[in-house]
Amino acid sequence: MGLRLIPRTQSAHDAPLLIHRLLDTPLRQSPDQTIHYRDERTFTYKQLYERICRLAGALSKLGIGQGDTVAVMDWDSNRYLEAFFAVPMLGAVLHTINVRLSPEQMLYTINHAKDDVILVNADFLPLLDGFKDRMPSVKRVVLMRDAAHGDAMPETALELAGEYEALLDEAPAEHHFELFDENAMATVFYTTGTTGDPKGVYFSHRQLVLHTLGTLTALTAFRCQTNIDSGAVYMPITPMFHVHAWGFPYAMTLLGAKQIYPGRYEPAMLLRLLSEHDVTLSHCVPTILHMLVSSEAVKSVDLSRWAVIIGGSALPQGLCRAALELGINVYTGYGMSETCPVLTLANLKPNLLDLPLAEQVQWRCRTGLAVPLVQLELHDANGARQPHDGKSAGEVVVRTPWLTQGYLDDSERSEQLWRGGWLHTGDVATIDAEGYLQITDRIKDVIKTGGEWVSSLELENVLSKHEAVSEVAVVGVADERWGERPVAVVVPRIDLSGPVSEADLKALFAPLVEDGTLSSYAVPDRVLFRDQLPKTSVGKIDKKVLRQDVAQALAD
Amino acid sequence: MGLRLIPRTQSAHDAPLLIHRLLDTPLRQSPDQTIHYRDERTFTYKQLYERICRLAGALSKLGIGQGDTVAVMDWDSNRYLEAFFAVPMLGAVLHTINVRLSPEQMLYTINHAKDDVILVNADFLPLLDGFKDRMPSVKRVVLMRDAAHGDAMPETALELAGEYEALLDEAPAEHHFELFDENAMATVFYTTGTTGDPKGVYFSHRQLVLHTLGTLTALTAFRCQTNIDSGAVYMPITPMFHVHAWGFPYAMTLLGAKQIYPGRYEPAMLLRLLSEHDVTLSHCVPTILHMLVSSEAVKSVDLSRWAVIIGGSALPQGLCRAALELGINVYTGYGMSETCPVLTLANLKPNLLDLPLAEQVQWRCRTGLAVPLVQLELHDANGARQPHDGKSAGEVVVRTPWLTQGYLDDSERSEQLWRGGWLHTGDVATIDAEGYLQITDRIKDVIKTGGEWVSSLELENVLSKHEAVSEVAVVGVADERWGERPVAVVVPRIDLSGPVSEADLKALFAPLVEDGTLSSYAVPDRVLFRDQLPKTSVGKIDKKVLRQDVAQALAD
Repeated sequence: MGLRLIPRTQSAHDAPLLIHRLLDTPLRQSPDQTIHYRDERTFTYKQLYERICRLAGALSKLGIGQGDTVAVMDWDSNRYLEAFFAVPMLGAVLHTINVRLSPEQMLYTINHAKDDVILVNADFLPLLDGFKDRMPSVKRVVLMRDAAHGDAMPETALELAGEYEALLDEAPAEHHFELFDENAMATVFYTTGTTGDPKGVYFSHRQLVLHTLGTLTALTAFRCQTNIDSGAVYMPITPMFHVHAWGFPYAMTLLGAKQIYPGRYEPAMLLRLLSEHDVTLSHCVPTILHMLVSSEAVKSVDLSRWAVIIGGSALPQGLCRAALELGINVYTGYGMSETCPVLTLANLKPNLLDLPLAEQVQWRCRTGLAVPLVQLELHDANGARQPHDGKSAGEVVVRTPWLTQGYLDDSERSEQLWRGGWLHTGDVATIDAEGYLQITDRIKDVIKTGGEWVSSLELENVLSKHEAVSEVAVVGVADERWGERPVAVVVPRIDLSGPVSEADLKALFAPLVEDGTLSSYAVPDRVLFRDQLPKTSVGKIDKKVLRQDVAQALAD
Repeated sequence: MGLRLIPRTQSAHDAPLLIHRLLDTPLRQSPDQTIHYRDERTFTYKQLYERICRLAGALSKLGIGQGDTVAVMDWDSNRYLEAFFAVPMLGAVLHTINVRLSPEQMLYTINHAKDDVILVNADFLPLLDGFKDRMPSVKRVVLMRDAAHGDAMPETALELAGEYEALLDEAPAEHHFELFDENAMATVFYTTGTTGDPKGVYFSHRQLVLHTLGTLTALTAFRCQTNIDSGAVYMPITPMFHVHAWGFPYAMTLLGAKQIYPGRYEPAMLLRLLSEHDVTLSHCVPTILHMLVSSEAVKSVDLSRWAVIIGGSALPQGLCRAALELGINVYTGYGMSETCPVLTLANLKPNLLDLPLAEQVQWRCRTGLAVPLVQLELHDANGARQPHDGKSAGEVVVRTPWLTQGYLDDSERSEQLWRGGWLHTGDVATIDAEGYLQITDRIKDVIKTGGEWVSSLELENVLSKHEAVSEVAVVGVADERWGERPVAVVVPRIDLSGPVSEADLKALFAPLVEDGTLSSYAVPDRVLFRDQLPKTSVGKIDKKVLRQDVAQALAD
């Protein structure tokens, strides 16, 4: 008879998944729980809700309504949290400006997102000054000040609509929020690749609510190395402009947990807040954790209740070990701007919890287990599903109710992202029989030879173990018969007595082929020597340039 | 500019909220965890998934496809759990037949739901035999057998399509499930009122998935008297035909928890399973808990890890106390057939956990705190919102993404249920400043006088404390000036020395009016005496009959 949709009586209300609904629970559960901004200000959840109402009222007065865009340039603050709610609750779109972009890129995103109002921390006002008369969509600018800025209004060429706290004071303590479609856009922000302009990704109310519930279930419902619940004390150390601080502020607000917003990341302030509030949950990139772990001050702080989820790039085993030794409960999370972001968490299954910490390291450093509602598969170059055997590699493709449905105003790259109805992460990985994902490569660094994928990372690992090798990179070069063939480029150590030959290095692969660790077609055809490798502006090996260099060298 | 919906690139997949997706997580998280049926059979989650595929294949072979209806008549079993998934995953509708209805009511629901296939436990086959030739929509009947039934096929006038296990054996171990709209109907079942035919309520995939996530968050994420996680051992003691066993089988399956299905409820078997599997979570009506708590056998079982959520009717404080004394972690949940069902759980907030158990009783017996995504308000007779002050009473009205959007094929009662865009529960309650709901009455038992609501329960409590009162009921009788006025009817204790007068009993109210506990307009106009009170077939006081009796008596 064909699919039967549920009938709805005329007066029935179907309760759209709106961000507003995330606030109902903490207001019942823990209205007096506190939210802290550095050592400067403290608010209760009741006050948070009142401030959200006031911000909504103030923005309405500035002309913001459904479909308008409000941008924020701020460090991690209670103000940012207020904007996370108030702006989407108005039916407007929150643009979280990445303040680490180059000024021209930042200006590009302001104009591309067509920001109507910008809320700007005084620290970034000089930057915004520089964009004067080049932001045609921007109608009003609101200033946000910290204790360090004093009371005086800063010098600016821009006409300010007012100061954030003053505007809130003037606005009513209650606001009536309209109901609307859960597919309304709630947030937009930009992700940068190695080439081209920043790309805008965007998320609806529905997507953010489901991301909150899915992530929260993964964090709280499964027996693992953490025991997160509403008693958590949360402090983000991933900027709130970066994929909603990985969505945690929404999840922790629903929980009614104590929250600490640290402002600009300063090691002394971070450690002080960690210690003073006995923080139990944070997330950050490996660099930040490394900075904290290797600081002198860390030794005087008890971090034995602190869980830290690492994302952004892989958690190195050495750093994981060092953090565990300090009592820090560290493990991996995985996602990207396009995915809202959380896809996996390296939750240890109960049988792994009995392992000594040293043996837990390899599991904590895995990319992790997919969180509820995430479908995660490995596809080969032809879109064929690869088995979950811990060996077969494929590109990670996903389906889950919280993926950007395209790049803003970029139909070509949108279709490329979603080809075949799966979101393509561009990451190459294996999935083992226990369900743990392990990313091995970016797909653009993978070498496709004879229809098979060879991991450049794996080959580089083999070569890097030879004492004569200082730096190494493996790239694929075009090959008429095989499509691509792997070629290694090595920078030899200069302090060695004798020289190393191409044959010496190629010999490293023979035993691996023999024992089946490596396929014979994976062995590099050539090992070239260079005095140095080309690098990008941030110090990573530039494989694009290297590929051209190698192709040229082989053609000569 | 008006609301801005997120644009979707053509190839984008928006991941509908389908019941199928609840299975992804346990298959990754705990594929070898077990599901038990009495002491008869054990399956792993991997096997559960295979059996779901086989059931789907078998049903497809019987002609079941999208929009068809498959009914189940069974005790709580792994087969029922398989049907909870396989039937909706096919895009078909699962009708969970209430086997406690009268035969004629049951037949009514089979015909009203237009069941295509019925899966029937041999215990109910004679009943179904009696419906032969009176179920025009039913095309096939599948027999389900327990160990007690032996191997022989039972006598029946019906033509059987086969036996459940045999059909599963013949079906393929894998099944390709189509994707479809999340608003597809997944389940239907019937609720009975005091008058009229049973009413059909129905739930979509989206509603069941959101109910699962919302309930699971309430159960696992908030610090309270239980610490439920994937290590839970779950055994339902609410029938699976009754509002999806309150939705717990879906939630516990997503968790990958150990599950025990007890079949027909037999006290000895229940206690044996509780003990043998060290069950940590169940739910039931007060009657069942009372039966277990007062059994002789309970003394020999350690139930100190057992949490029991009580629903269906209020948890009496005496029963709560008795259960707590046995070490049982008992508390209230609230919902109804129309609400999927969970609306509230009596989670104790952290500050209440320090109270001695005796003082926790009043909190554990409250109706509870609304779970995430539930909006719950009190409306007076005019639909005006009442304050949450612990005193102002109103009808509980709700909005949440998992409410039946009407009664099946009953437009009049559908609109009545949803008048004003809120689902009307028919329960009268207060909400205190901490957010706890406390139901005081069914709205039909509330007395509306001079535009105010008076709780019959409250007045009955006052009168029942007098030593001369054996039974009491308070009803409203029509009054030209006030709309209604309260009148009490008392059955005096026959073993008392002296008689009790109307004035004696009315005098009980004076101090309560004086100290402000009771409004003066709430004091009953009359107290009548009777030898007995009219009762319904299940032994409840029949207030409908009593109202007529009182009106008649006062008119005489």
